[in-house]
Amino acid sequence: MIDKLKLNIMSETDNSEKLYNEARGVIIGGVSRNTIFRKPYPHYASKASGCYIADIEGSVRVDFANNMAALIHGHAYPPIIDAVTEQLRKGTAYTLASEIEVAFAKLLTERVAGFERIRFVNSGTEAVMTMIKASRAYTGRAKIAKAEGTYHGTYDFAEVSQASDPSNWGDPESPESVPIAFGTPESVLNDVVVFPYNDIERTIAILDRHADQIACVLIDPVPHRVGLVKGTSEFVEAVYNWTRKNGALLVFDEVITLRVNYGGAQEKYSVTPDLTALGKIIGGGFPVGAIAGRADVMKVFDPHESKLLFPHSGTFSANPITMTAGYKAMELFDRDAVLQLNILAQKAVNQIQEAIKLADVPVSITGAGSMFRMHLKEVPPKTYREAYQTKEAKTVINELLDYMYFKENTLMINTFSCMLSTVMGQKEIDKLTQGLLNAFKALKPKIDNLNK
Amino acid sequence: MIDKLKLNIMSETDNSEKLYNEARGVIIGGVSRNTIFRKPYPHYASKASGCYIADIEGSVRVDFANNMAALIHGHAYPPIIDAVTEQLRKGTAYTLASEIEVAFAKLLTERVAGFERIRFVNSGTEAVMTMIKASRAYTGRAKIAKAEGTYHGTYDFAEVSQASDPSNWGDPESPESVPIAFGTPESVLNDVVVFPYNDIERTIAILDRHADQIACVLIDPVPHRVGLVKGTSEFVEAVYNWTRKNGALLVFDEVITLRVNYGGAQEKYSVTPDLTALGKIIGGGFPVGAIAGRADVMKVFDPHESKLLFPHSGTFSANPITMTAGYKAMELFDRDAVLQLNILAQKAVNQIQEAIKLADVPVSITGAGSMFRMHLKEVPPKTYREAYQTKEAKTVINELLDYMYFKENTLMINTFSCMLSTVMGQKEIDKLTQGLLNAFKALKPKIDNLNK
Repeated sequence: MIDKLKLNIMSETDNSEKLYNEARGVIIGGVSRNTIFRKPYPHYASKASGCYIADIEGSVRVDFANNMAALIHGHAYPPIIDAVTEQLRKGTAYTLASEIEVAFAKLLTERVAGFERIRFVNSGTEAVMTMIKASRAYTGRAKIAKAEGTYHGTYDFAEVSQASDPSNWGDPESPESVPIAFGTPESVLNDVVVFPYNDIERTIAILDRHADQIACVLIDPVPHRVGLVKGTSEFVEAVYNWTRKNGALLVFDEVITLRVNYGGAQEKYSVTPDLTALGKIIGGGFPVGAIAGRADVMKVFDPHESKLLFPHSGTFSANPITMTAGYKAMELFDRDAVLQLNILAQKAVNQIQEAIKLADVPVSITGAGSMFRMHLKEVPPKTYREAYQTKEAKTVINELLDYMYFKENTLMINTFSCMLSTVMGQKEIDKLTQGLLNAFKALKPKIDNLNK
Repeated sequence: MIDKLKLNIMSETDNSEKLYNEARGVIIGGVSRNTIFRKPYPHYASKASGCYIADIEGSVRVDFANNMAALIHGHAYPPIIDAVTEQLRKGTAYTLASEIEVAFAKLLTERVAGFERIRFVNSGTEAVMTMIKASRAYTGRAKIAKAEGTYHGTYDFAEVSQASDPSNWGDPESPESVPIAFGTPESVLNDVVVFPYNDIERTIAILDRHADQIACVLIDPVPHRVGLVKGTSEFVEAVYNWTRKNGALLVFDEVITLRVNYGGAQEKYSVTPDLTALGKIIGGGFPVGAIAGRADVMKVFDPHESKLLFPHSGTFSANPITMTAGYKAMELFDRDAVLQLNILAQKAVNQIQEAIKLADVPVSITGAGSMFRMHLKEVPPKTYREAYQTKEAKTVINELLDYMYFKENTLMINTFSCMLSTVMGQKEIDKLTQGLLNAFKALKPKIDNLNK
């Protein structure tokens, strides 16, 4: 449908600007997701196919954002479209079960060793919330522990300290519980214990102070906002051992990271989380979430139990459209596809490292599997506080993103990250690399200046 | 596609039972939604069209459940299918905005007077959670007030006392905050004030005790679990006036009730809620939620604000598939369609009243617009405690539901309720009425016995 790249020419009458002005009259702030918000105004897509996305101005770009990492096969992937088109005629949602939810549950539970049982919900936010509630139901405890800076959706307990900054994050020995939304109940902050990611000594000391009150320790194995840095084996094992000793659960948020290996990011650790929250790619482009894990823990959801610990439902949970699209997406993201995509990502990282050298800018890259993030720092950050972007750094990153968007026709995630899809090839990686080289050169003085 | 009713014959090899046994090995309890769970096993849909739904045994039934009230035009409604099929080829989700979200926001904000601004999310659960968080952000207060017995999704604050029973509901002067899930933090219970629906005097007295701490009073104008009883004008006005005096917001959950009038259930009150949560029918059969209301309150979401009070995002929020399906569904559920559907529902209620008389059973009906619920009580309940189903009553209701399902080929909601769709006509209402007459006659001794 969209077979070649067009140069982006800003027309005199900008359709996106016009549309956004209308949007502001009906949608608050003009957007339903702050991730797509841009100053002075966000852009509007007209259509997308494969790894290309067109806006209503008629410009076509390579899409390295893939709806915030949710599209593993890019846009309008024919096998998904065909399967969904067929299901559409049979209905999109019933007050009965459907075969495809069982088939998809089988596919996912066979794929990841720790997924003994699964349950579907409608979003990553719902998945994390439901996982936290399940942990409380299983342990009878109220508190959760999470890492400073990690994003886990919009459930208020899960979002504590997601965006702490130097003015409020407190002592690294004991990071403060910082609310995201104004008016967050004090009690929510008290029920969330915040630890520094990958810092074993401090984390264990903090957990110990709440030892008999913690229902679960929530870990994203490659947390995007912490810097897209992998959790070290030692760290994850130390936390796991702590949970075994103290009657808590180890729960993973793999909403984003499931794409990293065939069996998710958890595949590479010697220990297995008790529960895992899923979302993004398992929906094949449709709204989805899931909780998977140990059968005995998942039992809190089982309506067969005489004392049902956690009654739970959802109008659109396991709807046959999402299940059909998700099944196709995950079936086709098989071992080979994962491997090929990760090799492509590694090539991209290598090429970008070269571009960084050529442009002679203090930039580093972190990431895992098919995702990577760039930092305007010589040395790649290892912690949230190191990865934290100052206002000045954010300004330069926004300029880089604009350069890439307008001059190089590439769409990236607003943290300066890329999430690849299986429909990309060397051509798109070359385009990205060349674009970044140009951008680094153009903005070199500003990047250099940040590191002075 | 499914053009006539077939008699349901239980085959010797029951496919649903077989499939469910497989499901239990991979999905906890075999279902992702307890609403579709039935003993000894739930049933599996193969396809659905209009107001008919077929199971994998090959039986066809009239669908009065409509995916828990979410399908206002029944299944696979051609205008929705056509529009979605076209959008599918253009992509299902982008990291950019899309025109259809603006068009749909316009349609909804023009439809309901109080919807000055809107923001989309992915489910009713997310809508209510986001509305509560917005109320806290606007007022800076932590507590919310909600009615005993009302269902508002699975956010833990919203689900307090959703299923209180005589063993734990406490004094009617001051109902207890009863958790749904085991392990619900004590602090959550403390931050939720529970009042008895439609009871002005007690409600105001309870609210007064927390006057300066309440962010919002949450009202479902026709709460399903409270008995599908309308909130009286006097009650809603009294609560509204209380919120004006005490700096709190009045927020409505119209996830289910938007279907009741063209402008939602709120259209019939002299006062307007500050915020409203939406879901179900506005998704046109796809996962959806939304928050709409006063522009100055909604401002808490606006990323333009220098101090953003409530940063909020969501991977699938306002995705163009849901927006396209929702737009079509709501555009075609116009004033005429609402009126026609409500007239059909009133006919159904009248016919069922006759069936009740003919069968001489102590059964009553409550409801509003296109939805109604039957109670095994001579006098229709007015409160949650009156509507509360004892274990014995639930057993008889399950027998009635099974009778309707297996012998009369009609699918109803498990509270013994019906939610009509625009593709139904007199034929389906006659079938329902005749079926209920047969069921009432067959189970008369048991129904009578409950009322002794």
